[in-house]
Amino acid sequence: MLNRLHQPKDTEGIVDSAVQAVAERAQDHVDASRLAASLAALAQFGGRDDGGVSRETLTAIDLSARRHLVDQARALGCQVSIDDCGNLFFRRAGTEELPPVLTGSHADTQPVGGKYDGAYGVLAGLEVIAALNAAGIETVRPIEVVSWTNEEGSRFGPGAMGSSAFVDPARLAGYRDAADQAGVRFGDALDAALAASPDVERVPMARPMSACVELHIEQGPVLEAAAVPLGVVTGIQAVRWFRVECAGTMAHAGTTPMAVRRDAMAVAVAIAQDLYALAPREPGSTGSTGAPELRLTLGQWAVVPNSVNTIPGKVTFTVDMRCLDDAALDRAGAALRLACTRHAPASDVAITRFFHRGPTYFPEAMLASIQRACARASQLAGRAPPMRLTSGAFHDAMYLADHCPTAMIFVPSKDGISHNAAEETDATDLFLGAQALAYTVAELACRRP
Amino acid sequence: MLNRLHQPKDTEGIVDSAVQAVAERAQDHVDASRLAASLAALAQFGGRDDGGVSRETLTAIDLSARRHLVDQARALGCQVSIDDCGNLFFRRAGTEELPPVLTGSHADTQPVGGKYDGAYGVLAGLEVIAALNAAGIETVRPIEVVSWTNEEGSRFGPGAMGSSAFVDPARLAGYRDAADQAGVRFGDALDAALAASPDVERVPMARPMSACVELHIEQGPVLEAAAVPLGVVTGIQAVRWFRVECAGTMAHAGTTPMAVRRDAMAVAVAIAQDLYALAPREPGSTGSTGAPELRLTLGQWAVVPNSVNTIPGKVTFTVDMRCLDDAALDRAGAALRLACTRHAPASDVAITRFFHRGPTYFPEAMLASIQRACARASQLAGRAPPMRLTSGAFHDAMYLADHCPTAMIFVPSKDGISHNAAEETDATDLFLGAQALAYTVAELACRRP
Repeated sequence: MLNRLHQPKDTEGIVDSAVQAVAERAQDHVDASRLAASLAALAQFGGRDDGGVSRETLTAIDLSARRHLVDQARALGCQVSIDDCGNLFFRRAGTEELPPVLTGSHADTQPVGGKYDGAYGVLAGLEVIAALNAAGIETVRPIEVVSWTNEEGSRFGPGAMGSSAFVDPARLAGYRDAADQAGVRFGDALDAALAASPDVERVPMARPMSACVELHIEQGPVLEAAAVPLGVVTGIQAVRWFRVECAGTMAHAGTTPMAVRRDAMAVAVAIAQDLYALAPREPGSTGSTGAPELRLTLGQWAVVPNSVNTIPGKVTFTVDMRCLDDAALDRAGAALRLACTRHAPASDVAITRFFHRGPTYFPEAMLASIQRACARASQLAGRAPPMRLTSGAFHDAMYLADHCPTAMIFVPSKDGISHNAAEETDATDLFLGAQALAYTVAELACRRP
Repeated sequence: MLNRLHQPKDTEGIVDSAVQAVAERAQDHVDASRLAASLAALAQFGGRDDGGVSRETLTAIDLSARRHLVDQARALGCQVSIDDCGNLFFRRAGTEELPPVLTGSHADTQPVGGKYDGAYGVLAGLEVIAALNAAGIETVRPIEVVSWTNEEGSRFGPGAMGSSAFVDPARLAGYRDAADQAGVRFGDALDAALAASPDVERVPMARPMSACVELHIEQGPVLEAAAVPLGVVTGIQAVRWFRVECAGTMAHAGTTPMAVRRDAMAVAVAIAQDLYALAPREPGSTGSTGAPELRLTLGQWAVVPNSVNTIPGKVTFTVDMRCLDDAALDRAGAALRLACTRHAPASDVAITRFFHRGPTYFPEAMLASIQRACARASQLAGRAPPMRLTSGAFHDAMYLADHCPTAMIFVPSKDGISHNAAEETDATDLFLGAQALAYTVAELACRRP
């Protein structure tokens, strides 16, 4: 996969006081009650009694929600377009025909998700346009709000199909063959969605964009724990997924002496124990890998035959390793191989790396712009200043970072909960996030090349 | 459950040379080719192309096999009877109306089982009667060969229904409500089997028996590893089954720092690691519990939500502990509780003991009789003398030990494999086992009370 690091351009770091004044005016015209009403309206599409939302990508509910977004955008004076992967773009013209500033996120949810994961970024983008309209601001560059197709990946894998195909359109052909549990192909569901939008202009993928800002809920506990309403996201952790298969010999739990057993679970547990020791759970401790932010999850297990009184003949488990530091992941991968060697003959353990993605570093000039925006919004609200943090979850911005200068803003998630009907964020924090987004987008869109 | 220890009666230890001579004659009339033909004939009922047998209890195939056994027994001159749990008894009369000597095992198999698990004990019992007939031996006590209902427990749980209900008929009412996966009740399947045998006399359960000997394949690797064809089984290990439930908090693998995780799998692995340390795998080592024969199996695991990138919110695993020494199991149980306390707050781990059975010790007088029988058969065949071992698997004999002096004889299992189509035992070993059974049954049946 592409993962270019973007160096700040010389011009990006310079703060123009006229541009700043426009950015502040945009920020000050964000309307908390308009945003709340907009969030509540979209949450009706797939809304559940428990407060959650079920709106998987390209379902009938998602198509209704897309139509709703198109109507909302047109009411704000936007020009609506769609690309071959079903990504929807809502464009507010600039004074010049330059590559637009892009913002937005995704409107699809997990099978049972919350009201804000993705939807917040799209609707805050539309709120920015409403604020610019209300303030009578003209920007140099066009602004586009995007709603990416299938970020969640729960109905059709992998996730972030829309944003990754936008960046590298060659990916789309492979995605079209992905099928959901009912056997429906992504390609067919996509064609139906495109056919349902005959009034929407088709635009090419991989169009030049001048910058991209994604506003999202954190989906983790860091901001809440620090009592900070706004986070400047410095990058997205690298991730490696491994499958460890331990082979043993299925045998009777009663009749087989310990000395002659080949117990696949005993081997798996010993390897797992070594892995957990790599990333100590105490705050501040760096563990044997020397990586304070290394995260290890052994999430998926399969035991054969999985019977109380049979010695496991095969145990398979997955290892999800994440860190912003790729070198720490190299060390953790080496430690996994060493653990396997320590606890079983090589023929009894197989390690497969079945997914990986290098770290994403957002460019400093983008972070500086977001920092200014967040600092002002927090200060005016009498709240703690923004903090910098990394994202442990993937986002569409991860792929956009391969295409143009990109960065993200986080707002807190209550108890760090996400992908769950109980997902929640304070209305005040949602408002501050939209304010920070308005500032950032306006600043980026008012800069001359 | 009942589990009385049987003390040898004074008379049981005395070896009468006239009785021994009869026992030897019975042993010498066992016919290897007749036994092999008998085993091959029953294996046709549910026989599979891979050499295995699928004959679950009270299926149509099992009912045909029962009819076949009845015909075989009648051809040998036996009187056939059945009890309320469908246990079939094939009786060869004695010269006196004393409680019979019982031998036999079960004719049902696992969903995919082998030709010998259970069937061997029943057919070797019929071979003993054929040998006594051929030798023209009259015994003082009657001899009954039994085929117990539902030893395997795979279609209807629990296992050993027939033998345990014979010993304690009050158990039957509870068993009748057990249902198979298709929803068929054990009670209804049983009634159909009883109705299909109108020509078979009904006899009471819990009838007095003077002794019981069960011949079985070892289903483990001990005899094969020692190159010994005959094993004198001294008892059956005590067993305790625990379920350990570890609670955590489901959360995103990427967004949740290690320091704030409640990872149910990390807790489960730490507890499991402590458990495996209790029973070292080196031969002769006694581990921290001081029990050289302690066997521990962590066989069944369930992880919620079992997703690569979600921290496990709940992990449940089972612990199967076995040892002939109940005190060692007390220590292992205490160690399990200690491990849970070490690795998680009490509110995060729940331990449930969901099955237990104390050790079964077979009486020394029975072992002495079997020892003589095995020693003579081995010696005449030029093979290694018998060895003593414990059974790690349950058998019908475990329940009969609550009812009358009981013991078991084992023959080797190739590679220790059982509950598998690949289950195998050398024909020579099967022959020697039947010889040892003939000697033992004849000796027990010729002794006067």
